[in-house]
Amino acid sequence: MEEELIRKLKSIVGEDWVVSSKDSVAGYLYDETPPPLRPKACEDVVVVKPGNAEQVSEILKIANEHRIPVFPRGGGTGLAGAAVPTEKGIILSMERMNEITVDVENLIAEAGAGATLKDLIDAADKAGLSFPLHPGDEGAQIGGLIACNAGGARAVKTGVMRNYVKGIEVVLPTGEIIKLGGKLLKNNLGYDLMHLIIGSEGTLGVITKAWIRLQPRELASATIIIPFEEREKALAFVPKIFQEGVLPLAIEYVERNLVQKVADKLGLTWPCSSAEYQLMIILSESSEEALLSVSEKLLELCEKLGALEPVIAQTRKEQEEVLKIRSEIYSTLKPNMVDILDTTVPPANMVKLIETVNEIESEFNVYIPTYGHAGDGNLHLHLMKWDGWTEEKYDEVRARIYRKAVELGGTITGEHGVGCVRRKYLEQFLDAKSLSLMKEIKKIFDPNNILNPGKVLP
Amino acid sequence: MEEELIRKLKSIVGEDWVVSSKDSVAGYLYDETPPPLRPKACEDVVVVKPGNAEQVSEILKIANEHRIPVFPRGGGTGLAGAAVPTEKGIILSMERMNEITVDVENLIAEAGAGATLKDLIDAADKAGLSFPLHPGDEGAQIGGLIACNAGGARAVKTGVMRNYVKGIEVVLPTGEIIKLGGKLLKNNLGYDLMHLIIGSEGTLGVITKAWIRLQPRELASATIIIPFEEREKALAFVPKIFQEGVLPLAIEYVERNLVQKVADKLGLTWPCSSAEYQLMIILSESSEEALLSVSEKLLELCEKLGALEPVIAQTRKEQEEVLKIRSEIYSTLKPNMVDILDTTVPPANMVKLIETVNEIESEFNVYIPTYGHAGDGNLHLHLMKWDGWTEEKYDEVRARIYRKAVELGGTITGEHGVGCVRRKYLEQFLDAKSLSLMKEIKKIFDPNNILNPGKVLP
Repeated sequence: MEEELIRKLKSIVGEDWVVSSKDSVAGYLYDETPPPLRPKACEDVVVVKPGNAEQVSEILKIANEHRIPVFPRGGGTGLAGAAVPTEKGIILSMERMNEITVDVENLIAEAGAGATLKDLIDAADKAGLSFPLHPGDEGAQIGGLIACNAGGARAVKTGVMRNYVKGIEVVLPTGEIIKLGGKLLKNNLGYDLMHLIIGSEGTLGVITKAWIRLQPRELASATIIIPFEEREKALAFVPKIFQEGVLPLAIEYVERNLVQKVADKLGLTWPCSSAEYQLMIILSESSEEALLSVSEKLLELCEKLGALEPVIAQTRKEQEEVLKIRSEIYSTLKPNMVDILDTTVPPANMVKLIETVNEIESEFNVYIPTYGHAGDGNLHLHLMKWDGWTEEKYDEVRARIYRKAVELGGTITGEHGVGCVRRKYLEQFLDAKSLSLMKEIKKIFDPNNILNPGKVLP
Repeated sequence: MEEELIRKLKSIVGEDWVVSSKDSVAGYLYDETPPPLRPKACEDVVVVKPGNAEQVSEILKIANEHRIPVFPRGGGTGLAGAAVPTEKGIILSMERMNEITVDVENLIAEAGAGATLKDLIDAADKAGLSFPLHPGDEGAQIGGLIACNAGGARAVKTGVMRNYVKGIEVVLPTGEIIKLGGKLLKNNLGYDLMHLIIGSEGTLGVITKAWIRLQPRELASATIIIPFEEREKALAFVPKIFQEGVLPLAIEYVERNLVQKVADKLGLTWPCSSAEYQLMIILSESSEEALLSVSEKLLELCEKLGALEPVIAQTRKEQEEVLKIRSEIYSTLKPNMVDILDTTVPPANMVKLIETVNEIESEFNVYIPTYGHAGDGNLHLHLMKWDGWTEEKYDEVRARIYRKAVELGGTITGEHGVGCVRRKYLEQFLDAKSLSLMKEIKKIFDPNNILNPGKVLP
């Protein structure tokens, strides 16, 4: 990286906040995308750590003037390679901009882009409130969560990140700092640029600050695990829950062999071992009475539909252990993983998607570990290192699953996004007009294509 | 209107669905905007009533080719003149496309753009579900509700229209029919064009169909009216409710003299007469037990903060009467109204906004009737026909209130939108860059500016 650029960057953010030695940039090159799938990072990069939006603006102005690619980076927990610097350029790490304050009277957290999900959860909790979603890894940063419109396990009840973002401060690739929305529940002044930037994966602007809606805490929760002898039966149970008028905080699908492997690794016990395919249902209500009434409905439904005996985790410790195990499935699978799919279909169509998955498994004699947010129709299907398989064969399996998901009214990515790894599918699964509108929008925001180039759009 | 065009339109939608006589178009020229404020409609228009998206596409292709303005029209309940045909052109009334079906297993209603809010509420109810918001007049149509990102009284708990729209079918001004999203809780495939179109007030595309999220019914509700002797005290009470961990379905602010006038007109009784300034709080919970627990918290808060005696409406009939009265305030005021403002501020800042309103009232010796969605910080302030006032004086008052709202972190329109009536304020209250991005986006979607020209953007 050119000395002249480094000198300029240092003059903006200060000597200590620009690093470019091989060792010091190593931790900024990748995200959590499975290594066989992730793009190769360019190592000729400089990492800059701005302290405020004005510094971000100055950096982007220089980059725009000299056509230097800029790669915004949050917690690096993404699964689509959107934060990987694929060209020589600047990595913009938001880690220093991590202040967070809670305005209890307006139920709003004001968070710097570099504050983590854990920071947000803790800050809300300290203020006696809650951030209702749980959009993924707690090391994820606010800027990234918004840029990627993160989802997670609770979308079924609470919706995705987008629903809780009420305002953002953004620096555009051309250097302007704009504020969109604010501590506002309603804002209809012109086109909603904020919602366009949410989910644009760092290609339209750098989010530097956000105003996020919090809620009063729900006071009672329980986790119920329902085992099934077949995948189809487990997934077919999901729409029945809705039909019964029950809206859980989360409906997760897991497989016993996976959760037991994770539990062993963590020295914990998975509380349900009676069958392979399981729904883990988290109920959360405003009072113990309400929780009791909803739990009863759910248990009656199990009986009515002839499910196996459910297991109830009710103490905080039991519930936390179950969640801990669930949250570690990905990292346990990762060493042998080639791809984590993110297909999302209307929940009642999951059964049809899983039939295709089962067919592929028996046709090729492989196991496709499956878990995910069944309440949202968002299943993570894992392509693993299978003996003798080539990239072409993985592509074939992926294509079959993608086609089926879209045929069922679904999408190839519900929450992980496009990043690098799904760009090649956009032409196949988006209509030509939508894609062309997206490309023109990118040009309006970023005429010189300096911001996270090579991501999202093909 | 040219015979040739009328002939072409009839060949697309059929003889019966094109009308152009003065009498038959009269009902399509205006919306609910107060007459002193609304733009003048051009009467040289033809009203076309397409039956499906393909017909809409054919109409738009002709309009685009011949540069004929097209004005999409829903229920005509808007308050910003966005549906008024301000030039010679085609009014596209979506009234025939009013089919609605409910997919209970996926908690989704599929609704034609011309289905009304009442149709949606009824269809959800018939399916044993609910549409949680109540974004305004029940004669509003789905297409308009989405195009205008309608809000209404329940945003404090449920959010605005945007949060419930999961998919739309849209016809672009250049004629392409595209589908964005679907029966999907999560979708991160590229930039979110759907959320850009939501709130664009019919200027970027014609929404022809939508997939809308429903929810299980909440089973218990109560309406509590709390009277106060001062406006400030009533509004200052709102953030205290949140601080107490209570999230009502709605927190409406009303004034006794207004609701009593409406009640008299309707032959009903407003149940609370002990003081002028009142909060009407609707609680809605999943069970009677939960409702009881939340009500108790709220009543304790009243006692703690020394509020006057609250009145509780608990039977369905009492609650409906109160709602009915509340919903008729606008039409009662309308004959003497010059403008209904739609300022929205962070809820805890309403007190400061109302101080400015009180100052204006005493300075000019006028009464500014005030009511609205206090839980959202969204206050409707009404400029009335005051003796001897000129447009300049109304402008002055409006400007003072707008400046104050924005100074308090708010916006000049929370839910009613820009339409015609707020275009002139965009340059003042949006930064130049955001406005220029919006203008360029409009050009991408609508290169010949045929779709709802003269709306939203200055």
